Amino acid sequence: MKHSVIILVEPQLAENIGMVARAMANFGLSELRLVSPRNGWPKKGAHSAASGATHVLEGARLYDTVRDAIADLNFVFATTARERGQMKRVFAPDAAMAEAQRRLGAGQGVGILFGRERTGLENDEVSLADAIITFPVDPKFSSLNLAQAVLLVSYEWYKLATGGVLPFDGGRQSPPAPREMMMSFFDYIETELDAVNFYPEDKKPTMTRNMRDIFHRLEMTEQEVRTLRGAIRALAEGRRLRKP
Amino acid sequence: MKHSVIILVEPQLAENIGMVARAMANFGLSELRLVSPRNGWPKKGAHSAASGATHVLEGARLYDTVRDAIADLNFVFATTARERGQMKRVFAPDAAMAEAQRRLGAGQGVGILFGRERTGLENDEVSLADAIITFPVDPKFSSLNLAQAVLLVSYEWYKLATGGVLPFDGGRQSPPAPREMMMSFFDYIETELDAVNFYPEDKKPTMTRNMRDIFHRLEMTEQEVRTLRGAIRALAEGRRLRKP
Repeated sequence: MKHSVIILVEPQLAENIGMVARAMANFGLSELRLVSPRNGWPKKGAHSAASGATHVLEGARLYDTVRDAIADLNFVFATTARERGQMKRVFAPDAAMAEAQRRLGAGQGVGILFGRERTGLENDEVSLADAIITFPVDPKFSSLNLAQAVLLVSYEWYKLATGGVLPFDGGRQSPPAPREMMMSFFDYIETELDAVNFYPEDKKPTMTRNMRDIFHRLEMTEQEVRTLRGAIRALAEGRRLRKP
Repeated sequence: MKHSVIILVEPQLAENIGMVARAMANFGLSELRLVSPRNGWPKKGAHSAASGATHVLEGARLYDTVRDAIADLNFVFATTARERGQMKRVFAPDAAMAEAQRRLGAGQGVGILFGRERTGLENDEVSLADAIITFPVDPKFSSLNLAQAVLLVSYEWYKLATGGVLPFDGGRQSPPAPREMMMSFFDYIETELDAVNFYPEDKKPTMTRNMRDIFHRLEMTEQEVRTLRGAIRALAEGRRLRKP
């Protein structure tokens, strides 16, 4: 499947362009287009901010106008923080990426326009887009940094494209210990605690059940039961050794 | 409801701390804790990077150790890009924020640890946390910038807390025009096109239906129908005016 194209319109700061490239690479996007970057291109500082995402920066294509940059695409989103009085469909980033993937799957080219750092996209540029993406931000503080906006779109893109699979899942290497091992562990600690008169008279049944609950909740593996049992044994033996 | 606490462990760059504050403010978070920032605090440059989120920076609390910073909390997440061989539950940002909101709703204090820019959290620091958050990044380019990581967590936080409501929804001010107005519009353009012999012989029924489909698809409001009808009238009248 083709990927969504990220299009920055007159970006100014090298750091932002670099951070955009990094954010794209974090989430598997690679096609970057730049429309008339302020003060020219390439910019000093973009590479270091990209933090290794040089393939995105080096593959970036330059255009003079938004019209040129979107000419070969079939569907274009414009990102904007504010209402433009244009009667377009408005998408959240996740819904937009679902729409983009549906279209990309059907062979369409899809692009997302991001405006200038201070002033965003001009109304005329928004009017070249099919639909709008806006972000679910706090209305009291709604100004997203350029690279942060690209990050959120890229993140939702990748989350959808991969089903949100994580680089690792912390899945247990080992299953919970067999119940036989747990019951033997209970017998052991209850015997040791009895030996030191831990249980006040008449409280033993309740306290035993409560403590078994603590250990059940841990869902320990065999290795963990052995570790904990060893620690308790060390305490008990150490005490016996210290005693004359 | 209380909010999740963002905890940065030995952050180095003023720009990152400022961008973290901005990202938090974008998504309605305000409680920031800093554990031993490298080269002291406050840092020059943090305020300008915060781009107005000074209330977050100025409210930031300083701690010497992770232990101190999490002491009053009931549940702590550690963010990490790599497996640590610790048998903790691993959450994606969205699932983690669902868990955080459930706990906050029950009156618990919840914090999220973010590590140093280059080296992340130490294993010992991760071992103080109850669970892990990791990000669904491209394994080929998995290094997220510190502020970007905070942004993703904050974004998922706010999306969940608000039901993903957008600052504006592009809802139409006006409903689609009544069908009577559309049929009158069709009559008008079909008459004008007939007058200039637009339709090849025998094709008129098909072409008429196809063109009506184009206009139906627009779901135009009354105002839009008037605008388009005016544009067609201008073309037709202009032509008649130009003709001697």
